[in-house]
Amino acid sequence: MTKHRLGVDEYVAGVRAGDRAVLGRAITLIESRRADDQVLAQAVVAALLPWTGGAHRIGITGVPGVGKSSLIEALGGHLTGLGHRVAVLAVDPSSLRSGGSILGDKTRMQSLARDPRAFVRPTPTLGELGGVARHTRETLLLCEAANYDVVLVETVGVGQSEVMVAQLVDCFVVLMLAGAGDELQGIKRGILELVDVLAITKADGEGVKAARWAQAEYRAALHLMRPRYPAWTPTVLTCSAQTQDGVAALWQAIREHRAALATAGVFSENRARQQVYWMERAIEAGLLERFHADPAVAGEQAAVAAEVRDGRMSPDHAAGRLLALFMRSMGR
Amino acid sequence: MTKHRLGVDEYVAGVRAGDRAVLGRAITLIESRRADDQVLAQAVVAALLPWTGGAHRIGITGVPGVGKSSLIEALGGHLTGLGHRVAVLAVDPSSLRSGGSILGDKTRMQSLARDPRAFVRPTPTLGELGGVARHTRETLLLCEAANYDVVLVETVGVGQSEVMVAQLVDCFVVLMLAGAGDELQGIKRGILELVDVLAITKADGEGVKAARWAQAEYRAALHLMRPRYPAWTPTVLTCSAQTQDGVAALWQAIREHRAALATAGVFSENRARQQVYWMERAIEAGLLERFHADPAVAGEQAAVAAEVRDGRMSPDHAAGRLLALFMRSMGR
Repeated sequence: MTKHRLGVDEYVAGVRAGDRAVLGRAITLIESRRADDQVLAQAVVAALLPWTGGAHRIGITGVPGVGKSSLIEALGGHLTGLGHRVAVLAVDPSSLRSGGSILGDKTRMQSLARDPRAFVRPTPTLGELGGVARHTRETLLLCEAANYDVVLVETVGVGQSEVMVAQLVDCFVVLMLAGAGDELQGIKRGILELVDVLAITKADGEGVKAARWAQAEYRAALHLMRPRYPAWTPTVLTCSAQTQDGVAALWQAIREHRAALATAGVFSENRARQQVYWMERAIEAGLLERFHADPAVAGEQAAVAAEVRDGRMSPDHAAGRLLALFMRSMGR
Repeated sequence: MTKHRLGVDEYVAGVRAGDRAVLGRAITLIESRRADDQVLAQAVVAALLPWTGGAHRIGITGVPGVGKSSLIEALGGHLTGLGHRVAVLAVDPSSLRSGGSILGDKTRMQSLARDPRAFVRPTPTLGELGGVARHTRETLLLCEAANYDVVLVETVGVGQSEVMVAQLVDCFVVLMLAGAGDELQGIKRGILELVDVLAITKADGEGVKAARWAQAEYRAALHLMRPRYPAWTPTVLTCSAQTQDGVAALWQAIREHRAALATAGVFSENRARQQVYWMERAIEAGLLERFHADPAVAGEQAAVAAEVRDGRMSPDHAAGRLLALFMRSMGR
């Protein structure tokens, strides 16, 4: 493929035909900060919208070291073996700060990346969370338009990103490592409230016993919490990327979750609600963006915030002052 | 006191002098929806700002039936006995929907309400969460200006209100009832992540054993979670409003929490961060308010949202369309 600039029709045709190179370029376009790229990207996404929505969208999170990429590779391989077409996306809003990356290392997920039925997006998305959310959501739509019927969205369970991913996916899988001592130590706040399926990783060899122990602990902990959906109690299982033990069971649990939600009428309602959720977030983000981009606001804000911190100005008074500046600025 | 309309100076002088009737009227002013009342209320709060910040601000939450008002009355009585001046405020954003109220029943907290060193605000704040947050925050400031050195902010642990209250207070106390079976069943999502001190109520007579058992369970559960502050592991204790057992220990735990945070340098930093948090929320609320009040936006929004739900329009496209309407409207 020559690297000439593609038009909307070429992008649409390429993505629809499952051309991985075109799909990759379309995703790069989505992630571009150039204004003309953004216009083109929006046109491509809009044109592909009728072919989206067909994938089972699955979020997978876990702290670094939990064996996330190995397990995703194992699960992805299992799925392509069953005839599924699998896309793997990464959400890593921390990259900008830490310089780290989830999928930046090209040696990871090597066998899945070579699998013709799989698409692994190797570059992590950079930027702040709002932007990452939009990029990931649009990338997911492109993958659906390219006929991937399972999309795995990988995220590190160390920030706000999992809340966002939970609003992108149908099923939220949390990977946990069995520790030596307190099994639940270090759980990110709120993560247990989002979980649909919890998998204890590295349940092989010496690790089996600890994994079983952790499984019992997590089951008890989750049993004690109000479930996310009345129709579903989170499944807790153990698995191993090395031996493949539990990988089929993990997929089975994800499918059962979908069936339970669909039966209860929650599945499609969830999706509709997610759409409106993203519209509302986009409105909020757009308003704040315009607010902060306003020169009159920018000129005052730091001084006002300092007074608020010290208690010299009330938060409402400060907000009112900055908002008045903004509205006056708009009116000009 | 005659019911003539007070001016800013009269409000300020009355509140500063600890005149409970004037304080009550100032709070009513804050809660008023009338535009002229709002202007006056803002002027009063601004004038009193230099005398605020002096109270130990404590949030107390728990589901209905946990014995919240009895325990607050017991704790309040203990505190006034120690020479403190105690204000009790209620946050009940659900009132509007349910018609219920926390402190609406005037027969509750009777002895505390008669205590000259206590101020119990009997009317629950009505309205949506953002408005309730502002009213409560400003009421808290007025109580500080009136020299109350402990402010107890009561909330029902059934909604988003506890997240908001946690941003208003220095210490977040969660009351729990020992149940027959699963002690943690029905815990509101996220509540354990906010807790600084957890008290099992009704630990008297037959209830002592169950309370002790629940205490052990909650200790284990909290031990398994990442603490909110590295400097503080939540205290779990049992108490009884009837026998007063544990009430002194509850106050002791609240004071230890403050000391630990102060030593770690977190206490005042928390307060400064809360101020900026409220400014940011006020900006967001103000932007959204102006957005939704715009006739051009209001005319389009329902139709656009319906298309988004169905997947016929992308959330971003929809947001962009509504934002463009808003900005054009402003420019006129």
